[in-house]
Amino acid sequence: MVVEVLRLGHREKRDERITTHVCLVARALGAEKIYITGENADNSIESVRKLCAKWGGNFSAEWKATWEPVVNRWKKKGKVVHLTMYGEQVQKKIGALKKEKNVLVVVGGEKVPAEMYKMADYNISVTTQPHSEVAALAVFLDRYFSGKELEKKFPKAKIKIVPQTNGKQVIPLK
Amino acid sequence: MVVEVLRLGHREKRDERITTHVCLVARALGAEKIYITGENADNSIESVRKLCAKWGGNFSAEWKATWEPVVNRWKKKGKVVHLTMYGEQVQKKIGALKKEKNVLVVVGGEKVPAEMYKMADYNISVTTQPHSEVAALAVFLDRYFSGKELEKKFPKAKIKIVPQTNGKQVIPLK
Repeated sequence: MVVEVLRLGHREKRDERITTHVCLVARALGAEKIYITGENADNSIESVRKLCAKWGGNFSAEWKATWEPVVNRWKKKGKVVHLTMYGEQVQKKIGALKKEKNVLVVVGGEKVPAEMYKMADYNISVTTQPHSEVAALAVFLDRYFSGKELEKKFPKAKIKIVPQTNGKQVIPLK
Repeated sequence: MVVEVLRLGHREKRDERITTHVCLVARALGAEKIYITGENADNSIESVRKLCAKWGGNFSAEWKATWEPVVNRWKKKGKVVHLTMYGEQVQKKIGALKKEKNVLVVVGGEKVPAEMYKMADYNISVTTQPHSEVAALAVFLDRYFSGKELEKKFPKAKIKIVPQTNGKQVIPLK
């Protein structure tokens, strides 16, 4: 069971923080890798690399010049789920989606090429309202993994949070 | 049953898009209002206002100079749920939280004052990993509303999406 994420159409200046959030959500909620296409994403990738060194896990982030080869390669080993507010409602399709073992979750930027809708095995909406690719990805992963991603362990972490009713507790790990 | 959101510590330049995403997620996933504190948030508020005029609903966004009065007023009519990666795990507390009828969901920026942790009725984490306030808010609302928010209607909308397996269909409404 492998879940990876593809973030389309990154714009270097405008999208840096949003793309970083997309990466961190992918990692925290159980995906193993993110591909970023579009403009230079070095800053987001470097933020994620530093965070992984501290917080652990095997997540990776990679920039790709074009998205089509990523999608085409994926279609040989699993399904491609494109999150878009125009797609079928997640609450109606999640049962079928959970049966798919290997999934590439695609989230767009401002303009997603029409070709993406055609190449996707599923076009899925999280609400049919405009909001955020960060949120759509989070809700999708939480539902796809049935909440089990919240228990995910991150090997080789240097620090770990101990949940508190009030305040912060962070402990070092060996 | 009223859910509102408080976005703490907005920074005018750096946070504009993230704050806008927080607002749109609040709206799309069932909250009725957002309060924004910190620096000038006119651009985010204007984006939300325009979007609501087109997509409908009664959501509102308001800038407030300080967060304490918003929280203090809320504590008279409901509970304050502060989302923080240091808090108790959402999967363990959601049962209790669903029994709360009126909830103010607080999401922070970079530095949340220690006072916020103390004033909150609940400090709740969505994973104990660093990721995104946009994602934490989305997962929290989806779980709090048990997915019913995905069926929310938005009165007075000028347009509406008709979910499609492939492509886009947007219809005008009277």
